[in-house]
Amino acid sequence: MSATPHGRPLGVAVVGYSFMGKAHSNAWRNVGAFYPSAPAVRQELLVGRDEQAVQEAAGRYGWAGWSTDWRSVLERDDIDVVDVCTPGHLHAEVALAALEAGKHVVVEKPLANTVDEAEQMVKAAQAAEASGVRSMVGFNYRRVPALALARRLVDEGRLGTVREVRLSYLQDWLADPAAPMTWRLRKETAGSGALGDLGSHAVDLLHHLLGERVAQVSGELRTFVPQREGPSGREPVTVDDAAWARLRTTSGAVASLEVSRVATGRKNGLQVEVYGSGGAFRFDLEQLNELWVHTAEDGVGGFTRVLVTEPEHPYLEAWWPPGHILGWDHTFTSQAADFLAAVSEGRSPRPSFEDGLAVQRVLAAVEESDRRGGATIDL
Amino acid sequence: MSATPHGRPLGVAVVGYSFMGKAHSNAWRNVGAFYPSAPAVRQELLVGRDEQAVQEAAGRYGWAGWSTDWRSVLERDDIDVVDVCTPGHLHAEVALAALEAGKHVVVEKPLANTVDEAEQMVKAAQAAEASGVRSMVGFNYRRVPALALARRLVDEGRLGTVREVRLSYLQDWLADPAAPMTWRLRKETAGSGALGDLGSHAVDLLHHLLGERVAQVSGELRTFVPQREGPSGREPVTVDDAAWARLRTTSGAVASLEVSRVATGRKNGLQVEVYGSGGAFRFDLEQLNELWVHTAEDGVGGFTRVLVTEPEHPYLEAWWPPGHILGWDHTFTSQAADFLAAVSEGRSPRPSFEDGLAVQRVLAAVEESDRRGGATIDL
Amino acid sequence: MSATPHGRPLGVAVVGYSFMGKAHSNAWRNVGAFYPSAPAVRQELLVGRDEQAVQEAAGRYGWAGWSTDWRSVLERDDIDVVDVCTPGHLHAEVALAALEAGKHVVVEKPLANTVDEAEQMVKAAQAAEASGVRSMVGFNYRRVPALALARRLVDEGRLGTVREVRLSYLQDWLADPAAPMTWRLRKETAGSGALGDLGSHAVDLLHHLLGERVAQVSGELRTFVPQREGPSGREPVTVDDAAWARLRTTSGAVASLEVSRVATGRKNGLQVEVYGSGGAFRFDLEQLNELWVHTAEDGVGGFTRVLVTEPEHPYLEAWWPPGHILGWDHTFTSQAADFLAAVSEGRSPRPSFEDGLAVQRVLAAVEESDRRGGATIDL
Amino acid sequence: MSATPHGRPLGVAVVGYSFMGKAHSNAWRNVGAFYPSAPAVRQELLVGRDEQAVQEAAGRYGWAGWSTDWRSVLERDDIDVVDVCTPGHLHAEVALAALEAGKHVVVEKPLANTVDEAEQMVKAAQAAEASGVRSMVGFNYRRVPALALARRLVDEGRLGTVREVRLSYLQDWLADPAAPMTWRLRKETAGSGALGDLGSHAVDLLHHLLGERVAQVSGELRTFVPQREGPSGREPVTVDDAAWARLRTTSGAVASLEVSRVATGRKNGLQVEVYGSGGAFRFDLEQLNELWVHTAEDGVGGFTRVLVTEPEHPYLEAWWPPGHILGWDHTFTSQAADFLAAVSEGRSPRPSFEDGLAVQRVLAAVEESDRRGGATIDL
Repeated sequence: MSATPHGRPLGVAVVGYSFMGKAHSNAWRNVGAFYPSAPAVRQELLVGRDEQAVQEAAGRYGWAGWSTDWRSVLERDDIDVVDVCTPGHLHAEVALAALEAGKHVVVEKPLANTVDEAEQMVKAAQAAEASGVRSMVGFNYRRVPALALARRLVDEGRLGTVREVRLSYLQDWLADPAAPMTWRLRKETAGSGALGDLGSHAVDLLHHLLGERVAQVSGELRTFVPQREGPSGREPVTVDDAAWARLRTTSGAVASLEVSRVATGRKNGLQVEVYGSGGAFRFDLEQLNELWVHTAEDGVGGFTRVLVTEPEHPYLEAWWPPGHILGWDHTFTSQAADFLAAVSEGRSPRPSFEDGLAVQRVLAAVEESDRRGGATIDL
Repeated sequence: MSATPHGRPLGVAVVGYSFMGKAHSNAWRNVGAFYPSAPAVRQELLVGRDEQAVQEAAGRYGWAGWSTDWRSVLERDDIDVVDVCTPGHLHAEVALAALEAGKHVVVEKPLANTVDEAEQMVKAAQAAEASGVRSMVGFNYRRVPALALARRLVDEGRLGTVREVRLSYLQDWLADPAAPMTWRLRKETAGSGALGDLGSHAVDLLHHLLGERVAQVSGELRTFVPQREGPSGREPVTVDDAAWARLRTTSGAVASLEVSRVATGRKNGLQVEVYGSGGAFRFDLEQLNELWVHTAEDGVGGFTRVLVTEPEHPYLEAWWPPGHILGWDHTFTSQAADFLAAVSEGRSPRPSFEDGLAVQRVLAAVEESDRRGGATIDL
Repeated sequence: MSATPHGRPLGVAVVGYSFMGKAHSNAWRNVGAFYPSAPAVRQELLVGRDEQAVQEAAGRYGWAGWSTDWRSVLERDDIDVVDVCTPGHLHAEVALAALEAGKHVVVEKPLANTVDEAEQMVKAAQAAEASGVRSMVGFNYRRVPALALARRLVDEGRLGTVREVRLSYLQDWLADPAAPMTWRLRKETAGSGALGDLGSHAVDLLHHLLGERVAQVSGELRTFVPQREGPSGREPVTVDDAAWARLRTTSGAVASLEVSRVATGRKNGLQVEVYGSGGAFRFDLEQLNELWVHTAEDGVGGFTRVLVTEPEHPYLEAWWPPGHILGWDHTFTSQAADFLAAVSEGRSPRPSFEDGLAVQRVLAAVEESDRRGGATIDL
Repeated sequence: MSATPHGRPLGVAVVGYSFMGKAHSNAWRNVGAFYPSAPAVRQELLVGRDEQAVQEAAGRYGWAGWSTDWRSVLERDDIDVVDVCTPGHLHAEVALAALEAGKHVVVEKPLANTVDEAEQMVKAAQAAEASGVRSMVGFNYRRVPALALARRLVDEGRLGTVREVRLSYLQDWLADPAAPMTWRLRKETAGSGALGDLGSHAVDLLHHLLGERVAQVSGELRTFVPQREGPSGREPVTVDDAAWARLRTTSGAVASLEVSRVATGRKNGLQVEVYGSGGAFRFDLEQLNELWVHTAEDGVGGFTRVLVTEPEHPYLEAWWPPGHILGWDHTFTSQAADFLAAVSEGRSPRPSFEDGLAVQRVLAAVEESDRRGGATIDL
């Protein structure tokens, strides 16, 4: 393992221990095994509100210690990296304090629940950069090898000028009207519904894969099940079940976006299709080791299923021999490796908070368009 | 074969002998072999402008005679059915005259190039109905067995309340900027581009599968290659290469629509997905014998690939044993059989001219929305 | 249409009017429409045992006349082609008489129920060739465009040296023990079970695709449901439900073969995979318009799904534009066209009776191997 | 984490640090995070021959120490489990010594290179069982959730009586004749080629999924590239490139087996199909989160794609929410958990050495059959 700026392993703290806390803990525990050239890390602290639960989780996930107070990370000199896996409405507060304290910061996506918060975070991150403090937002799907390969194809011009993009992210866990009310279905805690949760991934991929930004938006939101049963009776659902948008990028490509939590029968269906003047690709997260590629030189050949597990494919050298497929959680390990490499080499990791803010602005524009009857909004 | 109203086989004329003329001729030649209970037909006359070509085509396709003047069909008493396969801007003139002459009329889709023409045709068709003269527009995909099965599932309530529909029809024959200018790319002859040609199929299927109409539209058109080389030099392309729309149905379902002739690598990619509160299905025209079905009673079972070739599936009794797949052209034969059965039984065949007009209105609304910057248009 | 040797359309008779009679009638009725350069044909006579049924079928399928006596075809000068679609145990008698009478002969596969009969037929066919009388056996899958394209790839050396072939043909219509006894399950009428019915297709494709013959065989037969209920009570099933074999070709390639009528859930699953030193392809009859191709120059690219509907693909010029898929029955039309072209041009059509005999010998060797406990049999 | 028999975490040593050593280390490092009810483990020692390499690997993979002498594990009281990931010809020696020393033993598949060695190992394991010492062979694919679900379906009788099984495992890393000579291609070090490496997985799955054993074998081996270039010039390849077999199980089911390292274009293609009187399933390791299921009650419904990521599916409670797919390496973690649970609960873990021996006997019978010209061998 590489030396670190401090001459010792980088100390990491994760704030949050449920779904994302588990996934990020897994990444920190394993990054050294697969990416030996990344700087070494030490899993110092896991933070959570429930004392018993966080203690138990810290033990399972390989943490040296635990705390119920996230502010404790600020004072510890042995903690160099703060990784924020809380619900979205707490992202800004923790991240701003951590940057202020000189910690490198990772924030799970989406960057924040509001554009305002995201803008503050960007400012703080830019200020921190000046003193070598790094920050990143956790759009982990950038590290899916198949999508990294897709990006490489676009970068190399293999697709020519991109004209059309089709983005959809379809799940069905709210298809049943009997599915209960949770904090995820209240605007004050969740910010938005399918749009923020699923659409943010899709929009970040659009920005990333094309290397440009969305410039114009028209969209619509819909809540198909307007009330659900909660612990204290029926309650209104104040976020969207599904959202649609047409997005125009700065270069003039058109992207269609559809996200849903009520697409009966679909589990984790993030699908991306990109059509350019010289080629195209298709991707489906449920088969995340595959990229379907067509290039003009293939002639009438249709799409080729590339099993993205060869040593020359992005990230694959770190993992297993050809044909041995990776799972969803491996993307977090690769993300951690990329982050650590950037920290170690004094570069700004991507996606930056600015990238995260750019996504928030697109999502906010979709909401504004919906409020204005589908009007076209310029960004 | 059944007796006909005239005590002899129904005499048929087809106007047009190229792509659609070939497909419809094939249907009339074969309908009796597969649907013996339909009234018998006689292929009387094929009509086309080029004398040599229409004579040759008439010989190949099994027609007793040929003509270069479509008006000749009007006077012949032995012609009971006029089937209009001309370019779209001639549909109205031929159909109106044929109805006036008391002929049953089939018009290939789309019904007309403009809403005005379509409205006249509907009026004429309704008047003719009074005297038992029948008319139909040729949205042949209603006769794809898999889609007929899909409709049956919706009708039976197996999908519950339909919430989301995803419609796309992607081709790539204009992806290459070097593809030449043709009449299909001029507004005055073609009416519109991908929207009318491909979108009309998709919108008719939406109406048909859900048994309801589109009530609200927001859309956008795009011409990615604004000029193409024609026989007399570079010429502006005056129709769309691709189109997008969000459609709201009368019951409140939301459909997204995307059609393109520049989707590199896609050949004839009509895809339909319908998500309801109780189930869902998916369909792809390139595998037209398959329907992917999920119903709530399947539990976590995902989608089942149904090979729609069993005797209990729609239309299949007419064809081959299980597992022997049908091709694209078989849909026209089944369409002819349905038309003949309606004529014989004194019923109005579907899709009616009114169905055709309903599609035109949706397409016109997409164009209007595009002109008005994506504004939402009520129908 | 081309002139014929007789200066008039070739007169055709089909013997048999059920499943195969319907499929072949369909081919003769349509061949002129799609293959205008083939010599013209006239559907003269349909022959069958049941007077009412054959009369009705002749009317539906476009035949000028009908007969209950197949010998009547021998005396009619206006019949040039006799197409034998009877059950297998009658093939030899009809074909021999027709050749003797100077008729061109098509025999539906398999050529005969026994090697003895097949050998007589080959002798007769060879003798007839001397006087310009042609014969062919109807392995229609040679005319699937995707398989014709596959053969072209092998011929061009795109796969290098073929090493391994995987052949399977799986159906499930006998999976249910309650499926009734029929003539197809008695050795005296059917010859064999899955082996002859399904295995013959697979073995002919092996010969055809590789351009070589099977030289060595080891195999096994199995009847999973030994008795079935027939019209006159329970009866022993005397043919196989399933069969397996390893086949070595003259060049040393190894093919595995598995055929079954009890493969629950599989409808018409003929699958072919060919692996060579330089490339490979895969095919599935249930998606008969697709060929999955991998060649070494594709690098790590996996298999490309080729939708075999482009004008440069075999047979496709005759049919529809790209992406408009063909059905199972179109293969018979293309087969008729190839036969007619050979007759017209004075060539021997393929697959010849000798090709049919070669298949019979392989199947007989599988049966012998099974009798001898799986012993290896040289051909 | 549970208490262990010793009142402290179980100490583990892995012998071998390359491909399998990395995979098993990964499992021991992560098992506690995902399976908290399993007894705790401590990664004590990694053993390998190359001092520098094993030291570096121990650091990366989370081991407390390292050694170049596998015998050092025998004497250490803090090591309770010895996990043997050496090349196959060393399995027996290490495992026998470890059992003798009272260590629980895991041996990576195949159990041994010869039946003789495997028999000794079984004897030793049985003797050790008496004093509560446990042993297991590492057929990790038993822990693929989709295959565990498949086994459950068979166990529950959802497939009825199993009749036919199709097993294939196709790779292509030796397709190119220029691929170099290695120890894997010499009989003395590798035992056999594709047969042992790939066929052992397939045969163990057959035993496991059906809950019965192979009773009769007929097979064939083939080396398509008889010589390859090694460090010291061209050398004969003394193991098979590909193998075929027909296997009959004790209940009379027939399984076909095909394994290959020269199947151009196939990367890690383990495919399993099981057809029973009442249902069937299909599986492909390259999409290891999917099981395709057909049961009779589905009627004509074909196969359902089950994304095996739901909480009620085997192993899934330990991992991620629905739709978040697992990778190849997760199977080792689940295998470790199952092993630890058995140790902790005083049960014999499966697959046992006896299961491993049963596989070896089948593979040996395939080789014998090949030597005897494909003769049928009884087990």
